[in-house]
Amino acid sequence: MKKYDKLVKNAVGRIVPTEVNGQKMEAFKGLGKHRPTGRKYAPPIPTTIDYPADGNKVVSSLEEALKKCGLKDGMTISTHHHLRNGDLVSNKIFDIAHDIGVKDLVWFPSASFPCNEPVIKYLEDGTINRIEGSMNGPLGKFCSQGKMKGTAVLRSHGGRYQAIQDGEVHIDIAVIAAPTADPFGNGNALYGPSACGVLGYALGDYQYADKVIVVTDNLIKFPCVPMQIEGNYVDYVVVVDKIGIPEKIVSGTTKVTKSPDRLLIAELTAKFCDKAGLLHDGCCFQAGAGGTSLAIGIYFHEILKKRNWKARFAFGGSTQYLVKMLEDGCLDYILDAQAFDLEAVRSIRKNPNHQDVSIFHAYDYHSKGNYTTMMDIMILGATEVDVNFNGNVVTHSDGMLLHGIGGWQNCLHAKCTILPIPLFRDRIPVIKDEVTTLCGPGELIDVIVTERGIAINPRRKDLIEKLKDSGLPLRSIQELKDEAEKICGKPAKPNLSDEIVAVIKWVDGTIIDAVHKVIE
Amino acid sequence: MKKYDKLVKNAVGRIVPTEVNGQKMEAFKGLGKHRPTGRKYAPPIPTTIDYPADGNKVVSSLEEALKKCGLKDGMTISTHHHLRNGDLVSNKIFDIAHDIGVKDLVWFPSASFPCNEPVIKYLEDGTINRIEGSMNGPLGKFCSQGKMKGTAVLRSHGGRYQAIQDGEVHIDIAVIAAPTADPFGNGNALYGPSACGVLGYALGDYQYADKVIVVTDNLIKFPCVPMQIEGNYVDYVVVVDKIGIPEKIVSGTTKVTKSPDRLLIAELTAKFCDKAGLLHDGCCFQAGAGGTSLAIGIYFHEILKKRNWKARFAFGGSTQYLVKMLEDGCLDYILDAQAFDLEAVRSIRKNPNHQDVSIFHAYDYHSKGNYTTMMDIMILGATEVDVNFNGNVVTHSDGMLLHGIGGWQNCLHAKCTILPIPLFRDRIPVIKDEVTTLCGPGELIDVIVTERGIAINPRRKDLIEKLKDSGLPLRSIQELKDEAEKICGKPAKPNLSDEIVAVIKWVDGTIIDAVHKVIE
Repeated sequence: MKKYDKLVKNAVGRIVPTEVNGQKMEAFKGLGKHRPTGRKYAPPIPTTIDYPADGNKVVSSLEEALKKCGLKDGMTISTHHHLRNGDLVSNKIFDIAHDIGVKDLVWFPSASFPCNEPVIKYLEDGTINRIEGSMNGPLGKFCSQGKMKGTAVLRSHGGRYQAIQDGEVHIDIAVIAAPTADPFGNGNALYGPSACGVLGYALGDYQYADKVIVVTDNLIKFPCVPMQIEGNYVDYVVVVDKIGIPEKIVSGTTKVTKSPDRLLIAELTAKFCDKAGLLHDGCCFQAGAGGTSLAIGIYFHEILKKRNWKARFAFGGSTQYLVKMLEDGCLDYILDAQAFDLEAVRSIRKNPNHQDVSIFHAYDYHSKGNYTTMMDIMILGATEVDVNFNGNVVTHSDGMLLHGIGGWQNCLHAKCTILPIPLFRDRIPVIKDEVTTLCGPGELIDVIVTERGIAINPRRKDLIEKLKDSGLPLRSIQELKDEAEKICGKPAKPNLSDEIVAVIKWVDGTIIDAVHKVIE
Repeated sequence: MKKYDKLVKNAVGRIVPTEVNGQKMEAFKGLGKHRPTGRKYAPPIPTTIDYPADGNKVVSSLEEALKKCGLKDGMTISTHHHLRNGDLVSNKIFDIAHDIGVKDLVWFPSASFPCNEPVIKYLEDGTINRIEGSMNGPLGKFCSQGKMKGTAVLRSHGGRYQAIQDGEVHIDIAVIAAPTADPFGNGNALYGPSACGVLGYALGDYQYADKVIVVTDNLIKFPCVPMQIEGNYVDYVVVVDKIGIPEKIVSGTTKVTKSPDRLLIAELTAKFCDKAGLLHDGCCFQAGAGGTSLAIGIYFHEILKKRNWKARFAFGGSTQYLVKMLEDGCLDYILDAQAFDLEAVRSIRKNPNHQDVSIFHAYDYHSKGNYTTMMDIMILGATEVDVNFNGNVVTHSDGMLLHGIGGWQNCLHAKCTILPIPLFRDRIPVIKDEVTTLCGPGELIDVIVTERGIAINPRRKDLIEKLKDSGLPLRSIQELKDEAEKICGKPAKPNLSDEIVAVIKWVDGTIIDAVHKVIE
C-alpha cells in the first residue's frame, strides 16, 4: 500500500509519489510556480427547514450527534488543537467510532499531541486509517515505524486551510470543541473552564465541512458573542462535563529560556534585527512561544521602548510577554490565532487591539494575499538546516517524525526569516549537508543564528552588505557546520527504508518531500 | 422582452413567469416546501502569487480598479446600502462604466435610494440593463413605468444572501464602500467621516464575488480592526475624497412619531405584546427605525424596566432608543446589521454587547438555522394587508413599485409577527380584499394593529384565546376593512398592464409574485 510505484523528483530534488492514499498529487514545482485552477470547495446548500425553529441544536451526547451526522466507514473527521495537550474531545470521537464499529476513518486534526496517544489502538485495529495532520510525539513515532495503515499527509496550518478550501480534503464531520457555546452553535474560547482564547484553527472546518458538531462544557443562552464559531454553520451542539484539562491547555505562565547558550542566541538575534534595520518604528513581527523566541521578544521590547518606537502588529502565538508589550504601548495590535497562556486569554477578552484572526487570514496561500509576506521579522525554529539553507521541522536526524509543521512553511514568506537555533542538540549537529526532510526551501530562509555565529543566506546580498561592519559574528553556514562537526563528529545518516509513511505538503498543495519508515 | 410567455400560478395563486431575464425560475410552492439541491456557489481559487507581497492593494482610482477587474458588457456589479441616501460611490461606478462604453450591466445593490436617481440615465442609454435589488423611490417608479430594459428582481435581504450563496446571482465585481480601510482591504464602519457602524449587508458580496473593490475615504495603516470586511477577499483598494454625505448616512437622532394615531397604534401594540405574554424576562424582539416602531420600543423599555425584566437580544436597525435600553440594563445584547443614528454607531464602537452580525447570520433561509425563528416579537410595516392577512411591502395601491422588501420576508418567520399599521393612508384603506403585490403569505402574519382595533389571524387560536378577556379592542380583519371603506370608500383597483416589470422572490429563491407595469 505505502510503497508507491510512481515517484517523481520534484523541484527541490526530492523523490515524491504522484498519488497518495489513492488521490492524485502534484509534486512541488518551485516557489510561486504552482497556479491553482478551478474553484473552491462548495458545501451542500442547507435549509433552515431542517433545523429547529427555536434555535436549539443540543442533542444528548457526542455519540448521538455523530450518528445523526451519519458517521460511517471511510469518513474524514476533523478537530482543532486549541486545547493542545489538554484535549479531552478528540479521543472520545474514536472511542465512539470504535464502539459503533466504524472503520477506516481519516482523522484530520489541525495538530495532535501526546494526549492523543490512546488513538494508537484505533490506528492498529483499523478504526482509523490514517492521520492527516501534525503528529507531535507518540503518534509521529508510530507513523515513522510504518505502522499506520494509510499514508500520513502533513500540512502547514495555512496548507490545511488551503486543502479544505480547495476541496483536496473533504471533511465529512467537523467536531469543534468550544470553551463556551450557545444552543444555536455559536461559540468562543474567551470564557468557561477550558478557555483557550481563540479558535482560529477551526474556521475552515466549520465553513466547509458537510456536518459540524460543537462540543462544549459551558453552554450559555443565545447569543454567545463574540462568535468565534458561527452557529449558522453548525448542525448539533453537545454538552459534556469537561472538554479539556485547563492546566494542559494554557499555562499559567510561559517561560523564557534560562540556558546561557539560548540566551546568547536570543541576544544575537535581537542585535541582528536591530543592526539590520529590521526592527524599526512601525515594524511587524512574529515570534513564537518557545523559550528562545520569548527571550528574543523581550529584547525587542527593550529596544522598542528605549527608542520610543512602536511595533505595528505582532502575529501568532500570544503570550504574557506580547501582552505586556501591547499594554506597555510598544505594540499597536496583536493578531492572534493561538493563545498560549492565561495572560493572553485575559488580554483578548478585554483589549480590542488584541484581535482574533484565523489561519485563513494569516496564512492561506490560496487567498487574495495573506499576512505573512507583510511581516518584517519572522522568528522560527528547525530540527535541521542544511548548507543550502533548506529547513526541516518535522523529523529528527534519526528520521523519526516527531513534530508537526505548524505555521512554519507559511511564515517563511516573511520579509526576513531568521532561525535562531543551537549549533547542536544532544551532541547532534543541527546544520547538515542535507536535511533529512525538506520542509522549506533555502530560498526562503534568510538567516541562521547560532551561539557560535550568524550565517546569512548568500542570496541576501543586501543583508550581508548592511551587516558587514556590524561587529556581529558573521560566518558562512559551511563554517558553522564544520565547527559543529569538529566538536560532535559527523552525524550518522538515518537508517531509512524505501517505504513512504508520510508526505509533506507545500503551502500550495504540492508535495515537497516524503518521509520514510525508520528501520530500528 | 418583458412579456413572458410561460406563466404559472404559484401556491398563493399568483401568476408568475417560469423564466426571468433568460434564467429559469421556480414558482413559490408554499411555506417550507422548496428544498434546495446542489451546492453553494464556488468562487475561483485565488493565489497570493497574484497579490502584492507588501499587502498594498491600493490603486489610483475606481476607474483603474474596475478596469483591472475586467469590467465588461453584461457583468453584475454589487454594492451595499449602508451609506443609505448619502451614498456617493454607487453612481460613480456607472458614470465610469458609461464613459468606458460598457453596456448591459446588472446592478445588484442591497438597496437603492433616491440619491441613486442619476443612474436612470444609464438605464435609459443601455449602460445598465436592470436593477436586481430594492428600489426606494424614483428608480422604482421608473421600473413601474415599464422603462427598464431587463426585469427587476426583488429579494429580501436574506434572499439576496441566499441568491449569492446558492449561485443564482453571480457577482462579477463587488464594490464595497468602507468608512475605514487599510491597504490590504480590511475595512470597517466604526470610524471615519462616513462611519455607519456596521457593514453586514456586504458579507455575501465579498465572500462570493469574483473580484472585490474596497472604496474608502479613510485609509489607515494595516491592520484595520475589527475586520468587518476581510481583506483576504479583496482585490483592490481605492481611496476617494468622500464616500458619503454623513448627515444622509446616519441621522443625529432618530425620531419617534408625534402623530396621535400612530402613538395609539404603538401603545396598543405594546399592550398586546404584554398581555399576550410575548414580552417577558429574557424575550427577544426586533423593531425597526420607523416612527411607530420607535414608539413601540419605548413602551417595551418602560414595561421591562418597571417589571425589572431584561430582554435577551434585539436584532436589527439599531437606534439611540435601543442603545438606551442596552445601557439601562433592560437588554443584554444588540445584534446589529444596520445602524441608523450616531448613538448606535457610538455604541457599537465601544460596547462588546452591541455586536455586529451579518444578513447571513440573521436572515439566510438556506443556512443551518437563522435568528428570525428565535424571535418572540417581530414588529413590521406594510403598504397593504388583505383579509387573508397576506402582506405587501413593495407597491402602493396604485401599483407603483416604490419600496424594497428589506428584511421583511425574513422577519415574518418570527414566533409572533405584528404589523402596526394605520387603517388608511391619505384616505386610501390599507386593508384590502387582495393585496396588489403579495410579498408575504398570510400564514406568517399573526396580528394587525390599527388605531381602530386589533385583528388576530384566525390561525392563531392560542393568541385569540389568550387575549379574549384582555380588554383590548379585538376585531376581525373584515370588520377593520369595512370600517376603513365606510370612511374612505372602496379603493379603486390599480390600472395595470399585463407586462411584467419585476418579480418578487420568496426567501427560498422561488417567485412569490410578479409586479406589472402601471398604466398612467
